[in-house]
Amino acid sequence: MKLVLLRHGESVWNEQNLFTGWTDVELSLKGQTEAKEAGRTLKENGFDFDVCYTSYLKRAIHTLNFALDMMDRTWLPVIKTWKLNERHYGALQGLNKEETANKYGEDQVKIWRRSYDVAPPLLDEADERNPRLQEQYRQEEKDLLPLGESLEDTIARVVPYYEEYIAKDMKAGKRVLIAAHGNSIRALVQYLEGLSKEEIMNVNIPTGIPLVYELDEQGRFISKEYLGDQKAIQEKMQAVAKQGSKQN
Amino acid sequence: MKLVLLRHGESVWNEQNLFTGWTDVELSLKGQTEAKEAGRTLKENGFDFDVCYTSYLKRAIHTLNFALDMMDRTWLPVIKTWKLNERHYGALQGLNKEETANKYGEDQVKIWRRSYDVAPPLLDEADERNPRLQEQYRQEEKDLLPLGESLEDTIARVVPYYEEYIAKDMKAGKRVLIAAHGNSIRALVQYLEGLSKEEIMNVNIPTGIPLVYELDEQGRFISKEYLGDQKAIQEKMQAVAKQGSKQN
Repeated sequence: MKLVLLRHGESVWNEQNLFTGWTDVELSLKGQTEAKEAGRTLKENGFDFDVCYTSYLKRAIHTLNFALDMMDRTWLPVIKTWKLNERHYGALQGLNKEETANKYGEDQVKIWRRSYDVAPPLLDEADERNPRLQEQYRQEEKDLLPLGESLEDTIARVVPYYEEYIAKDMKAGKRVLIAAHGNSIRALVQYLEGLSKEEIMNVNIPTGIPLVYELDEQGRFISKEYLGDQKAIQEKMQAVAKQGSKQN
Repeated sequence: MKLVLLRHGESVWNEQNLFTGWTDVELSLKGQTEAKEAGRTLKENGFDFDVCYTSYLKRAIHTLNFALDMMDRTWLPVIKTWKLNERHYGALQGLNKEETANKYGEDQVKIWRRSYDVAPPLLDEADERNPRLQEQYRQEEKDLLPLGESLEDTIARVVPYYEEYIAKDMKAGKRVLIAAHGNSIRALVQYLEGLSKEEIMNVNIPTGIPLVYELDEQGRFISKEYLGDQKAIQEKMQAVAKQGSKQN
């Protein structure tokens, strides 16, 4: 079985280096180009799919739409779920690195960025960024919606969703494409490869590059591969590693 | 209960006046603008939805996507089905009006265009336009896929789908938006309003204008309304009526 993961292309907030999380920002023009390029690469490499999964956030949905258009697969079924959303960045959402360092101190910011299980400052219940108050999540079970998440929290909602829906589709013979986010993809990478907390923190997912997993019939890891020009991909991963906030 | 129907904006083949049917052509730039305008109109008039339906054809899917983006509803669930596709125009697909008249005679062309129950010349089984041979319909039950349809044939697959899925959603309290095609929307209009064969042939659906039905709890017709500038809508409907092929 093969599974393809695709991190959305650059967003307009990536450009400005703001903590994004669940803020529903658009792809930048560069991000749109990355998404189309990903679709072209998948097509050229003979990939095809039966069903696609994405988040509730437009930067991932649009990435998927652009890629499907390039593959002549506009008509494929697409399932949207908040369970594949980016890590929720709590009260940090909308702040830039400098503001955050001034407000909370450099050391604290490092901890939030680099730790596995420390959540950012949570949103107030009354904050308009609280997903329980937002139209976008009106159909969801309120108690499950986060006010801020550690990577561990993100993993705790991504992996059960994967097991219940996506892995089930794959075991039924469906070829699956997932368009999602740096940290929801990290959650899947950790799960699929059985990585430790330390190992997953060192994994940097490049934007707009199809990541292909080969799994056995039980869904266990056999191998993985980034599709495309390997040198360009390496450079992209190093750029993501350097600018920690790009992972968020 | 309210139900909103939206005919896709102008396609690149509408511009060239070709029989389109199931040919999967793109929206023109004008068609993209019409789609965005429809989304803006729906938002300004306070419309909101819980689920959207569209066809397997990209001119309808993209119309829906543009409209949802304008309504800040990119994240809504979208269900794609070939049952909402345009009428299948058989062997006429890809021909322009002049070619068709030369090949089959003016009178015959009129019959195909204006009759309720006469199908166009069917595709050969071996024709590459046969949906049973196309990737796009590979998951569908082959026997159900048409080689050419009269309006009556189109109605015979649209209405059961509406009853089985869409009406059921509405009775469960969901607000539904359907983005589809001239003749699949005609099928719904005939069904909802209980029109005769003659009456439905005189209904011309303007492109990119939200058509709002108000129905009672049993799904029976109460009233209908096109949203937007009524004078511009009248002009659009007359233009559609004049150029018969635009309905196809």
